[in-house]
Amino acid sequence: MSKIGFIGLGNMGGPMALNLLKAGHQLKVFDLSAKALETAAAEGADVADSAVAAVEGVDVVISMLPAGQHVQSLYLQGDAALFQHIKPRTLVVDSSTIEVSIARELHASATQHGLVFVDAPVSGGVGGARAGTLSFMVGGEAAAFELALPLLSDMGKNIFHAGGAGAGQIAKCCNNMLLAIQMIGTAEALNMGVRNGLDASTLSEIMQQSSGNNWALQVYNPYPGVMPNVPAANDYQGGFQVNLMAKDLGLAMQLGQQSQSATPLGAHAKSLYDLHRVAGKGTLDFSSILKLLNGS
Amino acid sequence: MSKIGFIGLGNMGGPMALNLLKAGHQLKVFDLSAKALETAAAEGADVADSAVAAVEGVDVVISMLPAGQHVQSLYLQGDAALFQHIKPRTLVVDSSTIEVSIARELHASATQHGLVFVDAPVSGGVGGARAGTLSFMVGGEAAAFELALPLLSDMGKNIFHAGGAGAGQIAKCCNNMLLAIQMIGTAEALNMGVRNGLDASTLSEIMQQSSGNNWALQVYNPYPGVMPNVPAANDYQGGFQVNLMAKDLGLAMQLGQQSQSATPLGAHAKSLYDLHRVAGKGTLDFSSILKLLNGS
Amino acid sequence: MSKIGFIGLGNMGGPMALNLLKAGHQLKVFDLSAKALETAAAEGADVADSAVAAVEGVDVVISMLPAGQHVQSLYLQGDAALFQHIKPRTLVVDSSTIEVSIARELHASATQHGLVFVDAPVSGGVGGARAGTLSFMVGGEAAAFELALPLLSDMGKNIFHAGGAGAGQIAKCCNNMLLAIQMIGTAEALNMGVRNGLDASTLSEIMQQSSGNNWALQVYNPYPGVMPNVPAANDYQGGFQVNLMAKDLGLAMQLGQQSQSATPLGAHAKSLYDLHRVAGKGTLDFSSILKLLNGS
Amino acid sequence: MSKIGFIGLGNMGGPMALNLLKAGHQLKVFDLSAKALETAAAEGADVADSAVAAVEGVDVVISMLPAGQHVQSLYLQGDAALFQHIKPRTLVVDSSTIEVSIARELHASATQHGLVFVDAPVSGGVGGARAGTLSFMVGGEAAAFELALPLLSDMGKNIFHAGGAGAGQIAKCCNNMLLAIQMIGTAEALNMGVRNGLDASTLSEIMQQSSGNNWALQVYNPYPGVMPNVPAANDYQGGFQVNLMAKDLGLAMQLGQQSQSATPLGAHAKSLYDLHRVAGKGTLDFSSILKLLNGS
Repeated sequence: MSKIGFIGLGNMGGPMALNLLKAGHQLKVFDLSAKALETAAAEGADVADSAVAAVEGVDVVISMLPAGQHVQSLYLQGDAALFQHIKPRTLVVDSSTIEVSIARELHASATQHGLVFVDAPVSGGVGGARAGTLSFMVGGEAAAFELALPLLSDMGKNIFHAGGAGAGQIAKCCNNMLLAIQMIGTAEALNMGVRNGLDASTLSEIMQQSSGNNWALQVYNPYPGVMPNVPAANDYQGGFQVNLMAKDLGLAMQLGQQSQSATPLGAHAKSLYDLHRVAGKGTLDFSSILKLLNGS
Repeated sequence: MSKIGFIGLGNMGGPMALNLLKAGHQLKVFDLSAKALETAAAEGADVADSAVAAVEGVDVVISMLPAGQHVQSLYLQGDAALFQHIKPRTLVVDSSTIEVSIARELHASATQHGLVFVDAPVSGGVGGARAGTLSFMVGGEAAAFELALPLLSDMGKNIFHAGGAGAGQIAKCCNNMLLAIQMIGTAEALNMGVRNGLDASTLSEIMQQSSGNNWALQVYNPYPGVMPNVPAANDYQGGFQVNLMAKDLGLAMQLGQQSQSATPLGAHAKSLYDLHRVAGKGTLDFSSILKLLNGS
Repeated sequence: MSKIGFIGLGNMGGPMALNLLKAGHQLKVFDLSAKALETAAAEGADVADSAVAAVEGVDVVISMLPAGQHVQSLYLQGDAALFQHIKPRTLVVDSSTIEVSIARELHASATQHGLVFVDAPVSGGVGGARAGTLSFMVGGEAAAFELALPLLSDMGKNIFHAGGAGAGQIAKCCNNMLLAIQMIGTAEALNMGVRNGLDASTLSEIMQQSSGNNWALQVYNPYPGVMPNVPAANDYQGGFQVNLMAKDLGLAMQLGQQSQSATPLGAHAKSLYDLHRVAGKGTLDFSSILKLLNGS
Repeated sequence: MSKIGFIGLGNMGGPMALNLLKAGHQLKVFDLSAKALETAAAEGADVADSAVAAVEGVDVVISMLPAGQHVQSLYLQGDAALFQHIKPRTLVVDSSTIEVSIARELHASATQHGLVFVDAPVSGGVGGARAGTLSFMVGGEAAAFELALPLLSDMGKNIFHAGGAGAGQIAKCCNNMLLAIQMIGTAEALNMGVRNGLDASTLSEIMQQSSGNNWALQVYNPYPGVMPNVPAANDYQGGFQVNLMAKDLGLAMQLGQQSQSATPLGAHAKSLYDLHRVAGKGTLDFSSILKLLNGS
């Protein structure tokens, strides 16, 4: 059982914190939303009135924030910069999806402050956060990974040690770029098949059992009517928003640019999601890219 | 046990015919290559001296040719047009990968001649042909599919009824377009990860167990050193040639054009394979697209 | 003064025929639209009751039809195939925009019938057709080009001899593919500039006088408010329809495929126009691609 | 006649400084290259031993550096930050091509220091720098633009006031993105035409006089043999390097990302230049993209 300071109780952070509570950990939580704090308090968390207060006297700090600038601000900037308030040798886990460069800046600064830092972005969405089945992609020293492992296991199912500082963010970037490409490709294939008279379910099954097989065909089919309980079955409500996929693709493009990696289909996927947002579809699930293709 | 006329004993047709022989069928074979005929004869096939002779007195005709023009020529053109020589009610199976429009032309003509026709292109490559584990995507009437099913099962593992006339070709077109997109996407993700310090095997495993999972990551990894017994482990020799993938993508673009289906990533995938061919890589396996990305 | 049989009095053919009449030529015209025939008759044309009748006794035949299949049908198919009715040594000018392969088929057949054929597609739109300022891109023998030149000069301003059989279609294909790419590129640049606070007119002027200069910036600016008398000034009504640009890009993709020419941006331009059509913008002018980019 | 402190005497800055000397201005110059300083001294410039020394007692400061980080460092960082050494009310002109965000940071800081700042990137290449025919795209207050105008006119021909702070960089970004797209499009069109038997010069002339017309066709044809005195006539030596175009496209992608502007062809153009660099062509002129298309 650990004493954990948890910062950021949004759609992802909220259920992650609850799973830690269920696993028997003691939590001090902070968020800007009073409502989020109330919910956590009702489940047994101690509510802190600032991030600095939340990390006082804890063994582990976990953060789950929307973007790199928030994480930079939290740990590094101003008098309330958490790295100046967390006690030495504390494990700090940032599960936000952020720029690799910022993750590396955090690693360096944490080391200077005598802290043990891992970048540990997740995959699996709100559903995975609630069910405690998230995947964690962890970057940091092997010892730091080992230290974080039991804790992450209370929130997720697959915990990967991707490599050194920033490697978690890099792995997530690569995975989500591939995911975006495959989702669009799947939508293109299904749309073309249906326009030529094939049944979407039949074609999905054929491709799933052939070389076209992928995660979307297995559990997240973008074509309405093929699968129950996916966003496509619900007018693309819920799931992983186009806006968030566009954000992740922006991070991927930045990583590609910095490392001079050619990502032609990744860049094209970003363009298509950009066009989809421009057409007003930003808050739909990312499998709604089918609508860009078929005008529905 | 059937009496089968088999036309086309190339890299794919050769091993397919052998599997039919092993299953106990009686084969009359024809090909332009004397060597291919010899091999088949050594396994017990009767060698015919023409396509017309090969289909005389058989119950089933199977063809496996390089492209649509050859199939058109075989069945429809000139005095030796097979449809004029095959006896009524014979089952005719064309397993070549050809234009949907030509497949439909063949269906119509076969019906006029009183024949039972299915288009049944395959997936699984030379390895699958040899092992008898091909996937068949079959287009035609339900009754025709049932008739062909036992025979196809002697050459393959997954036999799908994709739909009516031409549906086999459509399904294969869609599948291979998706495959091309995913292979490039996988290569982009792995290349970017490695350029940023990740280990190709580690990143492959992470994505395989995450939302980036696909067939390439599972059995056909494009990054050298991750998997044994794939083209990437052998300088991209063997496997499915870039030239053939470019051909299939050409068929997909044609189908998209005819059906006004938008295929942005499919078209981009074709462009990338075109550039790869132009750079002299046409005879390598299609997973070699990694070389276009990293200049290796 | 020539006696001309003119087939096809649509948006382009109609005004082209009028310019020939104004130049003093004698015209026998045919079209499926009674209204188009009436208009031509009012300007002094003789109305024929069939294409065959229109070419009887004339020195020159000109056709202007929507697509390759219509041209094939007109000249080559059935009892009314015009090549069987036009008297030997007649000059035949097809100004339709069609497949290069069909243009070459027409050249070959015309030669067999002793006719002098040129493919002569045009550029310049309905406005150019009315003003007699079209560009003609002509494919055929030098002597045939010289024969056609005076006549084409009565309908256009720039008359180019692109090369041998089919070269007119090839040149138009290349030009229009480039045009599509540039129009989209111009819209992207202007949209990005405006979103960052620049004035569309100022940015247009800067790029027009810099290395970004192109035809669209000079006379066909896609951004509303920069130029009067362009489709962008009129809600993208009139001009050159998205549907027609998509057709021309389809011809370009086919030509690229046949000649194994890599056309990455050409293919991407086609995808974007396809998405624009799917979104219901097919009948707007092609400069409306700006709307796909900015969601207007 | 002005007293000018000039920082950065590279391929562009060197000849720009010489033109100022020729126009009668008095220059104090600084560069890290002793050779560059010698050349300038030989033409009459005073050599300063530091950037700080170069701006002492001058009326105007001009900088021409490779990238944003150098400009940031020069003006803003450390004890030698020039903005702390330049006397109030001095005109400061930065002609480097840099991030819009950095340009705006410089504007804000300059204002705080009581300086008059304009961002004024150039177009026209080394040739234009030597001939004094550069285009300047200027961002800043109208009064600042008026102040800079006579001086810029001594180095260039077209001096544009693009708008407020950063607008010069924005305009250049837009222009160069369009240029990249058009250069690739032009290469695609010419390559496809030639592969289908057309003469590159004939096709170039046709498109130049048609709707495909652009700057590349007018003065910078990418196809060898069409124009003398362009990089294509000299194995793509000289001119504007692929590496620099890739840098500019990186800036454009960043600007598009920050402003949520969809740039599908811009992103694709960047991918193609990235692939070209990966293939070892980074130091060739950017019109060499033709080689990626035709494998030459």
